[in-house]
Amino acid sequence: MTMTAELISVGTELLLGNIVNTNASYLAEQCARLGLSLYHQSVVGDNGKRLAGVLKEAAGRSDVVILTGGLGPTKDDLTKEVVAEFTGKALVEDTAARKVVEDFFHVRQIEPKDITENNWKQALVPEGAIVLKNPNGTAPGLIVVHENVHIILLPGPPGEMKPIFEASVFPYLQERSPGVIYSRMVKICGIGESKVETMIADLIEGQTNPTIATYAKTGEVDLRVTARAEDESQGKKLVKPMIRELKKRFGFYIFSTKEEETLEETLVTLLRDLGYSFAAAESCTGGLLTARLVNVPGVSEILKQSYVTYSNKAKHKTLGIPKVIIKKHGAVSEKVAAEMAKGAANSAGADVSIAVTGIAGPEGGTPEKPVGTVFIGCYVKGNVTVKEYHFDGNREKVRESSVVYAMTQLRECILSQPRVK
Amino acid sequence: MTMTAELISVGTELLLGNIVNTNASYLAEQCARLGLSLYHQSVVGDNGKRLAGVLKEAAGRSDVVILTGGLGPTKDDLTKEVVAEFTGKALVEDTAARKVVEDFFHVRQIEPKDITENNWKQALVPEGAIVLKNPNGTAPGLIVVHENVHIILLPGPPGEMKPIFEASVFPYLQERSPGVIYSRMVKICGIGESKVETMIADLIEGQTNPTIATYAKTGEVDLRVTARAEDESQGKKLVKPMIRELKKRFGFYIFSTKEEETLEETLVTLLRDLGYSFAAAESCTGGLLTARLVNVPGVSEILKQSYVTYSNKAKHKTLGIPKVIIKKHGAVSEKVAAEMAKGAANSAGADVSIAVTGIAGPEGGTPEKPVGTVFIGCYVKGNVTVKEYHFDGNREKVRESSVVYAMTQLRECILSQPRVK
Repeated sequence: MTMTAELISVGTELLLGNIVNTNASYLAEQCARLGLSLYHQSVVGDNGKRLAGVLKEAAGRSDVVILTGGLGPTKDDLTKEVVAEFTGKALVEDTAARKVVEDFFHVRQIEPKDITENNWKQALVPEGAIVLKNPNGTAPGLIVVHENVHIILLPGPPGEMKPIFEASVFPYLQERSPGVIYSRMVKICGIGESKVETMIADLIEGQTNPTIATYAKTGEVDLRVTARAEDESQGKKLVKPMIRELKKRFGFYIFSTKEEETLEETLVTLLRDLGYSFAAAESCTGGLLTARLVNVPGVSEILKQSYVTYSNKAKHKTLGIPKVIIKKHGAVSEKVAAEMAKGAANSAGADVSIAVTGIAGPEGGTPEKPVGTVFIGCYVKGNVTVKEYHFDGNREKVRESSVVYAMTQLRECILSQPRVK
Repeated sequence: MTMTAELISVGTELLLGNIVNTNASYLAEQCARLGLSLYHQSVVGDNGKRLAGVLKEAAGRSDVVILTGGLGPTKDDLTKEVVAEFTGKALVEDTAARKVVEDFFHVRQIEPKDITENNWKQALVPEGAIVLKNPNGTAPGLIVVHENVHIILLPGPPGEMKPIFEASVFPYLQERSPGVIYSRMVKICGIGESKVETMIADLIEGQTNPTIATYAKTGEVDLRVTARAEDESQGKKLVKPMIRELKKRFGFYIFSTKEEETLEETLVTLLRDLGYSFAAAESCTGGLLTARLVNVPGVSEILKQSYVTYSNKAKHKTLGIPKVIIKKHGAVSEKVAAEMAKGAANSAGADVSIAVTGIAGPEGGTPEKPVGTVFIGCYVKGNVTVKEYHFDGNREKVRESSVVYAMTQLRECILSQPRVK
């Protein structure tokens, strides 16, 4: 007895392939979180007749229809008009929608009299629609209920759509879903997707409530455990044993159980909590690892310095690795990775460091060290650990995997240290 | 009298939001290249009945239907079966398809006798289908013509789908399109999307043949000029004056007219051609700039060394910037950007360098230097140029924009040098 939902993305730019439809994957994941069954997604251009056709079909088979795009102030934007016509409602000016427009220009220090005429189109809504605040634009979100179908209109830009969905649409749908949906994230790094799937195959086989959905990124697998329940406390009760089971199976490889937390955030937090300063020496990753850490606001508290030492000369000159070592072992070797890690920590005066050296391809592979061979060295307060990896995929993929496994490895080295409490 | 095309993406993982549908944007762009009119895209799960419904509708309104996904060897994969049933064709074993399976395992040194049974499902095709080679997997592409509709089946993984499309589907559709489609890319950096659109508004207004489509990325706008013509030479003739006009309008800001060439490739090629070695000093970009350049295979010929000097201490210690200068001007300043550029070039012994220092946010902004303020310094053989930028968006966006504008600025500095031929 679940509710069914369906997505309609409106926009000629999607039909021309000018942009990737990230709204659809975001909304699909949100529907899964809400326990809605999503069977169809469509994309249609800014064309009244074709949009009306797609909408009619969607409303005929689903309980919830979410439309994104086509809410702008230009005459090409037709979503609202098509929905009004389909539901037989007139477009009327709405005070709340008018305020969305005024507020938007007010913060930008533009007076109502200076707002160009077409923007006031944004104040028109289908009669009786629920108007949802849009802090980041002039098009409010709208909900129109028609013959028991919830038709939800959201602006196309993700930066406007997502905040409206989170603040208004999610609670609206949650309230209408039968019972509540309770979900928890378990984020795993350092284990490949297929291995994770094998390790939980028995849990997924024949799962009913809770269910586990897997979301794989490069070097990371997120598991969402979702339960349908009568109330939140029952939901928690259903999810808890599964989380416990996953923790038992994946242990240390779980880096977070927080919805929004990234691997780099957990690493920066770990270093900050321990008062450890950080440095890196990057060869094949070319700065990508440090750039990932710099994603985290406040990283300045721990980041001493990083060196992109792509050439052998730079490895020698900047990190002080004797030329003879590079010559004897090769730049992509366990020995050089260890020396790079030590060199980076010494040069920067850091407590911990990561060094990455590898063959990202497409050239440079040998039978002994094929493309995808990467050595990662971690230095933690005088101790150096080096691991050898063999990553699949093209140059970009090898480099991305290197970054994730490097963070994972440093986390492991730090956590497995003997600690004095 | 154009042909209409439509896309159907098959896969439950798309409905759960586990992955983003990049296949759809790729195929949409290819359809635009081919001059096909694309009015609809759909996503449907691995469900026979619903897929059959979507297919029936698509085949009823479009000349070409492209399905991706659901061609795997498991019992969940149903696309081929649904198409066979819809077109009333039996599934029969095909020699070419069988060979695709054999070849795939042969390169992986697996004997036919050791191939598990389910893989041979891949050798079954709807009777009379055209079988398309798949060098990267066991599922061949298939084309079934039914009542004048070209139904094209492709595997879901982009790494398999794209090569089959390029090698087999593109020429197949091109041959069947009325006339030929000739298109050229014009890639622009250093000018914002809305400004580019304003600068070509008169060309786009009322355009018929050729047409211009814009594809905006961070800091880069690509324009595709497409002409429909009787033959290639007429196509070239139609496109040429438009390219000339665009070159006149955007001049130096056009960094490439090659389909696949990236901005970092043009920069690395430029440096290599001039025999210039490169270094960078990155603060807010945290290594992202150097990582972009390291995308280019063969970058080792020019890349001396990069420094991620996020803290003031690192700027002083590694790049030799006097503490008093940082204190007086602030780390985010014209002066410090200039000193960082000089320091990086000197420390690394490089001919040219880029330095980036800015406030990426969310913290750290002041009324004088709000979030998004970035100073970029370029050093070219003793000359330093610094520019101040104000970028929009969140931390990630500010850092991405900084990287693109930094490459653009260095390119400009080098190209505007007096040159001895």
